[in-house]
Amino acid sequence: MMEFLVHMRVTAIPGGTDAESALLQRESKRARELADAGILLRLWRIPGRRENWGIWEASDVNQLHDALASLPMFPYLVITVHPLATHPNDPRSPAFRSNLGMDQQKSDVQEDR
Amino acid sequence: MMEFLVHMRVTAIPGGTDAESALLQRESKRARELADAGILLRLWRIPGRRENWGIWEASDVNQLHDALASLPMFPYLVITVHPLATHPNDPRSPAFRSNLGMDQQKSDVQEDR
Amino acid sequence: MMEFLVHMRVTAIPGGTDAESALLQRESKRARELADAGILLRLWRIPGRRENWGIWEASDVNQLHDALASLPMFPYLVITVHPLATHPNDPRSPAFRSNLGMDQQKSDVQEDR
Amino acid sequence: MMEFLVHMRVTAIPGGTDAESALLQRESKRARELADAGILLRLWRIPGRRENWGIWEASDVNQLHDALASLPMFPYLVITVHPLATHPNDPRSPAFRSNLGMDQQKSDVQEDR
Amino acid sequence: MMEFLVHMRVTAIPGGTDAESALLQRESKRARELADAGILLRLWRIPGRRENWGIWEASDVNQLHDALASLPMFPYLVITVHPLATHPNDPRSPAFRSNLGMDQQKSDVQEDR
Amino acid sequence: MMEFLVHMRVTAIPGGTDAESALLQRESKRARELADAGILLRLWRIPGRRENWGIWEASDVNQLHDALASLPMFPYLVITVHPLATHPNDPRSPAFRSNLGMDQQKSDVQEDR
Amino acid sequence: MMEFLVHMRVTAIPGGTDAESALLQRESKRARELADAGILLRLWRIPGRRENWGIWEASDVNQLHDALASLPMFPYLVITVHPLATHPNDPRSPAFRSNLGMDQQKSDVQEDR
Amino acid sequence: MMEFLVHMRVTAIPGGTDAESALLQRESKRARELADAGILLRLWRIPGRRENWGIWEASDVNQLHDALASLPMFPYLVITVHPLATHPNDPRSPAFRSNLGMDQQKSDVQEDR
Amino acid sequence: MMEFLVHMRVTAIPGGTDAESALLQRESKRARELADAGILLRLWRIPGRRENWGIWEASDVNQLHDALASLPMFPYLVITVHPLATHPNDPRSPAFRSNLGMDQQKSDVQEDR
Amino acid sequence: MMEFLVHMRVTAIPGGTDAESALLQRESKRARELADAGILLRLWRIPGRRENWGIWEASDVNQLHDALASLPMFPYLVITVHPLATHPNDPRSPAFRSNLGMDQQKSDVQEDR
Repeated sequence: MMEFLVHMRVTAIPGGTDAESALLQRESKRARELADAGILLRLWRIPGRRENWGIWEASDVNQLHDALASLPMFPYLVITVHPLATHPNDPRSPAFRSNLGMDQQKSDVQEDR
Repeated sequence: MMEFLVHMRVTAIPGGTDAESALLQRESKRARELADAGILLRLWRIPGRRENWGIWEASDVNQLHDALASLPMFPYLVITVHPLATHPNDPRSPAFRSNLGMDQQKSDVQEDR
Repeated sequence: MMEFLVHMRVTAIPGGTDAESALLQRESKRARELADAGILLRLWRIPGRRENWGIWEASDVNQLHDALASLPMFPYLVITVHPLATHPNDPRSPAFRSNLGMDQQKSDVQEDR
Repeated sequence: MMEFLVHMRVTAIPGGTDAESALLQRESKRARELADAGILLRLWRIPGRRENWGIWEASDVNQLHDALASLPMFPYLVITVHPLATHPNDPRSPAFRSNLGMDQQKSDVQEDR
Repeated sequence: MMEFLVHMRVTAIPGGTDAESALLQRESKRARELADAGILLRLWRIPGRRENWGIWEASDVNQLHDALASLPMFPYLVITVHPLATHPNDPRSPAFRSNLGMDQQKSDVQEDR
Repeated sequence: MMEFLVHMRVTAIPGGTDAESALLQRESKRARELADAGILLRLWRIPGRRENWGIWEASDVNQLHDALASLPMFPYLVITVHPLATHPNDPRSPAFRSNLGMDQQKSDVQEDR
Repeated sequence: MMEFLVHMRVTAIPGGTDAESALLQRESKRARELADAGILLRLWRIPGRRENWGIWEASDVNQLHDALASLPMFPYLVITVHPLATHPNDPRSPAFRSNLGMDQQKSDVQEDR
Repeated sequence: MMEFLVHMRVTAIPGGTDAESALLQRESKRARELADAGILLRLWRIPGRRENWGIWEASDVNQLHDALASLPMFPYLVITVHPLATHPNDPRSPAFRSNLGMDQQKSDVQEDR
Repeated sequence: MMEFLVHMRVTAIPGGTDAESALLQRESKRARELADAGILLRLWRIPGRRENWGIWEASDVNQLHDALASLPMFPYLVITVHPLATHPNDPRSPAFRSNLGMDQQKSDVQEDR
Repeated sequence: MMEFLVHMRVTAIPGGTDAESALLQRESKRARELADAGILLRLWRIPGRRENWGIWEASDVNQLHDALASLPMFPYLVITVHPLATHPNDPRSPAFRSNLGMDQQKSDVQEDR
């Protein structure tokens, strides 16, 4: 499984306020499904903007694309995908949580270059 | 508490390989302390680069700055802080997880503009 | 409480001159309410442009977003939020105004890195 | 008198830690003088960066330049000056604070274009 | 009095060729008034573009904004204002024209940093 | 003769304070010569920066280049040249100053596209 | 005479396929006239784009502007003009073609800075 | 054969004035060879800068690269290559110079999209 | 033959869902023809976007342009062409696959500058 | 397996010509190993630059990072990774090569949004 940082900007939605409200409800429902499937992990609003940052997880970039394209608002989104690699200092990595000795630390350091 | 998306780029570290290895070990140790304090939540490497994306949490932007400035590598980091607001579709938000009725949904929609 | 530097650009407002005048009056009224609530502190026009810079204060970024989203012109604004941390040389900071001795100065200096 | 939004980025300071500490103390002293003279109004640190935003006030752009150039750190600063015009919705403007009638509002609106 | 370098880009003008011709005539008339008032000093076309560079003079940035906003084409202009400070080598500065001795030169040099 | 808007940024000058002072004096002397020759018309400092805007006049771009390259600081300057065409609303253009009738105005308008 | 490097981007042309075809024919005819007049020297298409690069020659920037503005497609073009100075290594420069001795070379070198 | 628009920026040349002069002479000699070989067609200086624009011709992009890499200054150049396609309105194209009838024009138009 | 890296962005397609579906089918058919002709080598979708990267091969840039312009979606594409030269370490280059001795390696190295 | 488009820029390599030659030979050897392992698929030089584009294949982004970090030149490379998703019109995709009927085409079209 891979994690991705995804940025979304919502462009103008046609059809007036009612069409927009209906679309946002469908979007919320689809987001819940993707969260239940373990694909959408986190989502934050960028203050003052119709943009968001999210953490997504998928088996590969094709599964990620399919998840993004399944959003009802997809035609109105400008999306940027940032692939994420594991970092030795990530609090969720197994190596980080264990009590590493000096030698193993050194190999982490070498990988970090 | 507020969450922040933080981007870091590591610039050239002076002092040769040994000085750099020692610094990276101190950095790793400090990262673990910040993780234990609940300030550093996640950290990912950007593939192919000496850059990372992280999710950080702090009571306010001053506490965040102090945490960032406490990193041994801080003098060699170019840091960009993105403040994050809560999104109604975030899988961790209470509203998102409960089974909302139509009317409450509608008010979420209005806030989302 | 946190302070924010906020930049706003006004995009084209639909509906003709009368609709625009009415909207600007509602905007002015809402700005006064936000000023009375201590959220909008300062506002300046960027000369020659339909843009402004403002200093806003809120308990966190969510309260700031709600204040911005409550502006009648919000649908027509492109907003950029810059979070602000305290600076030891800010004329309004308590440390800056008191007559600091050499040792305390030194710790400020260390924080400034 | 005019107000200016000023952005400063601190570049690398030569001479080692002691030279830098001494310089920062002289900078702090000069900042206090400029604050006492009513030229430096506010100063904020950009979190995670050696950058700041400030509100400065001067009789004209030449007085502003002289104030900026008088900073001991001036040779190491990359400065951007944003001139600020008054906005009718600024909480400190006299018109904003008074209880305006409809007709006067209308002329504000016209000026706002 | 302050001088400003002002860049203008003309966006699409609605209403067809006749409306545009009428607007350009009103613009030319207003430009002459601003020139007679000593506010518009110089204006150049950027070759191949509907853009211009101008030198404007005003008592402060508010008077400049009012002059720019008084242009009939203002709703169709994207304007950028560059504030200008005096330079010791400006051919129109009094110091530059006089025959300065070495000592006075030196102080100019110091101001130039 | 053609006019040019020229932007200059001064990069770091090697050789210490004395070398820099000597260079600035030679620069000032050469600027006066270019002003006397009618090539350097105006020069302004960009506030807070080691940059300037200038209006230069030359028979063609080669003469302009030679004038710029004759500056003692030329090796330390990053220069951008903006060619300027005449604008019908320039206060110094003959057409602008005369009292044009409607028909002649119309042809100006056509040229302005 | 001066040479200019000119970049053109063609924006959307209104009026449907027939109107566009007619405009392109008029454009081609006008291009031939400008080529016959010695103003348009070369023209290349940027592959995959509705953009072109051209070499144009004119007595000054005003004549160049008039030539560009005479193109039937001018209202739909975004044009960028790059002024060109002579280079001592240009194959068409007289100095380059002659068999220069060392001393004359040296002065070319000095001009090249 | 293909034509290319090539932009070059000269970065700092190490070794002092004498080393630089010698390098510029070798560069001039190599430029003449490339001109004689029909590869370097034109070269212009960008006024005020150590940059140039050139028209180069080669059988393919590999031959172009070899020609550029053969320049003595190549290690100090930042080069950008713009590939050029033929344009139907280029004064040197055979179709442009002949007196085309309506039908053939039409096919040119179709190709121009 | 030359290879090109080509980036395409699909802009809004007019005519509704049915018109778009028909266009996409024609596009797919034309892509297959270009693949059969050995011009379109590879094509990848950029995840989350209506953009793609492709590897194309053509005898020169004119043949490439004709291939791109033959796409039914060409009027709605923003295309960027990156010309590609051979790299000595490309797995498909003959030199890379053979077992090179030290001397020949050295000449590759020299070409690589 | 995932494919990636990778851009590399080579920065200045310390140690003189001999150190650089040795490094380039080690780089070439490592590239061959990565090609033999099926990770480095293609590599092209960007003409006139010390930059390259490559197609890389890995099981995930971590394996890609390890491959990139194993290059002897890695400390001197500025790398940008573009993740690639499959495109229905890619000549190597199974669906593209088979002779699809109308109905299956339609579902491809829907996925393409």
